[in-house]
Amino acid sequence: MALAYPRRKALSGDLNAALASRFGQRFSTSLAVREHHGKDASYHPSMPPDAVVFAESTSEVAETVKLCAVAKMPVIAFGTGTGLEGNIAALEGGVTIDLSRMNRILRVSAEDLDCTVEAGVTRKQLNQHLRDTGLFFPVDPGADASLGGMAATRASGTNAVRYGTMRENVLALTVVLADGRIIRTSRRARKSAAGYDLTRLFVGSEGTLGVITEVSLRLYGMPEAIRAACCAFPDIERAVQTVVATIQAGVPVARIELIDAVTMDAVNRYSKLDYKVAPTLMFEFHGTERGVEEQVEQVRGFASEHGGSEFRWASGHEERNKLWQARHDAYFATLALRPGSEGWATDVCVPISNLPQCIAETERDLAQTGLMAPIVGHAGDGNFHLVFLLDPKNPAEFKEAERINRRMVERAIAMDGTCTGEHGIGYGKNHFLIAEHGEALSVMRAVKHALDPDNIMNPGKILPA
Amino acid sequence: MALAYPRRKALSGDLNAALASRFGQRFSTSLAVREHHGKDASYHPSMPPDAVVFAESTSEVAETVKLCAVAKMPVIAFGTGTGLEGNIAALEGGVTIDLSRMNRILRVSAEDLDCTVEAGVTRKQLNQHLRDTGLFFPVDPGADASLGGMAATRASGTNAVRYGTMRENVLALTVVLADGRIIRTSRRARKSAAGYDLTRLFVGSEGTLGVITEVSLRLYGMPEAIRAACCAFPDIERAVQTVVATIQAGVPVARIELIDAVTMDAVNRYSKLDYKVAPTLMFEFHGTERGVEEQVEQVRGFASEHGGSEFRWASGHEERNKLWQARHDAYFATLALRPGSEGWATDVCVPISNLPQCIAETERDLAQTGLMAPIVGHAGDGNFHLVFLLDPKNPAEFKEAERINRRMVERAIAMDGTCTGEHGIGYGKNHFLIAEHGEALSVMRAVKHALDPDNIMNPGKILPA
Repeated sequence: MALAYPRRKALSGDLNAALASRFGQRFSTSLAVREHHGKDASYHPSMPPDAVVFAESTSEVAETVKLCAVAKMPVIAFGTGTGLEGNIAALEGGVTIDLSRMNRILRVSAEDLDCTVEAGVTRKQLNQHLRDTGLFFPVDPGADASLGGMAATRASGTNAVRYGTMRENVLALTVVLADGRIIRTSRRARKSAAGYDLTRLFVGSEGTLGVITEVSLRLYGMPEAIRAACCAFPDIERAVQTVVATIQAGVPVARIELIDAVTMDAVNRYSKLDYKVAPTLMFEFHGTERGVEEQVEQVRGFASEHGGSEFRWASGHEERNKLWQARHDAYFATLALRPGSEGWATDVCVPISNLPQCIAETERDLAQTGLMAPIVGHAGDGNFHLVFLLDPKNPAEFKEAERINRRMVERAIAMDGTCTGEHGIGYGKNHFLIAEHGEALSVMRAVKHALDPDNIMNPGKILPA
Repeated sequence: MALAYPRRKALSGDLNAALASRFGQRFSTSLAVREHHGKDASYHPSMPPDAVVFAESTSEVAETVKLCAVAKMPVIAFGTGTGLEGNIAALEGGVTIDLSRMNRILRVSAEDLDCTVEAGVTRKQLNQHLRDTGLFFPVDPGADASLGGMAATRASGTNAVRYGTMRENVLALTVVLADGRIIRTSRRARKSAAGYDLTRLFVGSEGTLGVITEVSLRLYGMPEAIRAACCAFPDIERAVQTVVATIQAGVPVARIELIDAVTMDAVNRYSKLDYKVAPTLMFEFHGTERGVEEQVEQVRGFASEHGGSEFRWASGHEERNKLWQARHDAYFATLALRPGSEGWATDVCVPISNLPQCIAETERDLAQTGLMAPIVGHAGDGNFHLVFLLDPKNPAEFKEAERINRRMVERAIAMDGTCTGEHGIGYGKNHFLIAEHGEALSVMRAVKHALDPDNIMNPGKILPA
């Protein structure tokens, strides 16, 4: 879907020269670098910026933004490029600030269970760094995304059902505003009633209000016991009902992931596993030894009431990692089901009581099309994804996927849900925001205009034109 | 401390007539009604509005705001008047909208563990309503505050250490904007990445961006087991160290409250109890029977390492309620220590590792003044209060309390903490916001100006002049 966006103007010679002289080899206008920075991990085509700056500090980001502000050129923040809704596409050209070199872990406080990192630090890097401290950072969207990008997207993933999303786990941010000023959104106390919650205003703002350069995060003590298991079901409905029962009973499961039979088959092949090919729930339990036992007992009860198989345990650290890596690779595994295909990952989220109906109706839609679209989901949150496997040379397939996706989003919104649980809006979903937010969208526009009057921060994202 | 604020203008005859004709007996300009609505539960003097409207629906609030917007008259939302920083004082006159008649519980979904209530529903009313459902709403600031007011203040209280504050527990809000338009800030899905987080922008905005008229809240299953206990310590430092050890170990205590010896004595007298007069921690444990046992074992270990006494259990529902009611009444109990005194409750919050030092330095300050100021705290969050007991006829005491409070706030901010953990800013603390937020304050101002360009929504609150 190549989209024609108005490019406002090319990079002026002055701005080009100023950035080149300031950043030297860390400033690039090469086509390869620009194209790389215009493309995320989704089906959205590359929309390259005019230039890329590789920043190494908050003050370098501020300098870059100031220069762009004077020239009224767009500024796009780039972490790892693992977004899924074109969140980093340079729709109107401009300068992309690559934050991947801002990868210092600035502070870890085991005493306060928190840390501060630069925006380019990835979640795996952080957890690797924490390995010997007995602490970990739970938010896990699958990809090894940067923590700045995860904050900007309000990312979540497999652990959110217990530990929350980036909304709950960001304590404070350092942000470069649209005029280059630098703010810290909050102090480090666990709670505060001191003024507007700027931290959460910037979490999920996708670079449209400012560039996040540092992130303070909550950390958690590594649980005494961790156990992971898979459970196969006769059909997807009964798997989902097991999820609903588990959540309604308040069992503090750490992960409760749904994958359908097609995905299970694909995952088996891709990751060389031999799980039963069936709709499957993948669980992880965190707690004390006894606490985990209790959780397992409860959930096993719900599963067996709904026709679930015996639990198959992934015992030991290594086997568990293998299971979750396989779950994370599900996207690539499903792509391999149709070689040469392009993946389009959808992302709705509904109140948990509506999840069975929402999935059932979506399956009925799918049964009536020729499209292949396996289902995976962070079912404990009411969040699931179809991955459409599309022939990139066949626009009719994209059109049909668009139709199914639109119906799915409308269905989710009608069920008091959202058009995106965790991927964000980018420019792939901004047309759904009117239906989702109605008049509230005018408040978002007012905030955007107040903080970025010249609309230079990641223009064309989140807010529909 | 009578403060001279400029009253912009008296209520015009037109606005007066329009409101009187629309609301009849639910519109009042009587002095008694106005004075009641200008006074909260704090030492701040009454600052009465020009008139009070008793609204019964969101659309009535919208009508009132629209009329005030045309006349550019201030609008102040009023719930129960239990705030502590003059949050509802009508500094510039205007119209107070009393929301206490908006007390309908609109929806409870046991399946989704959430509900929607009108802003005037109080937390006790909600929990009373939920009694037979096996669910409860945990946020508990002590006072039987309205849920709209709690959202507006970003309130928390004794349960926040486990269940979070209003920030974590509000799912969505209905808000009347400064021009009378009505928005819903979010849909009901547990997570969403669909645009700016307006819910959390309005949570804690103290009526300065709009009037909250409906609140959707997370609910929790009543735990299988609840146990509460008190533990006495030889000094306050060792009590605080026990709290720090408990939090750092990640024990999911539901409540961990600190009260000093003076307060314990006052509470014993006021609530006819016979706890040992000593610095004391009050615990509540929630979980399965076995889970609670494990928590108790762990915490008892930490307490005894720090010289804590045997746990004294409040067994049974009734005795437990009595204990927490006594804790909630600590404020009144301490007031009774000095008959005729006025209470001034301070409210700082720091990262937990800094709590022992912050309390110790504050105690040293207190030792050097003649003021009486018992300490209570939601210590698990790093949050504590002094309650100054002041002679209302002695301005020197207020001045000294102000000095100690200023030093305490500066100390908390220097420790990366906040000037208010849960009471909000009102007009009692806005002069601290520059030190706390620095440049970020300009972003708050920009947001305020964008949403309320004529500054009619609760003017003079949060943002310093």
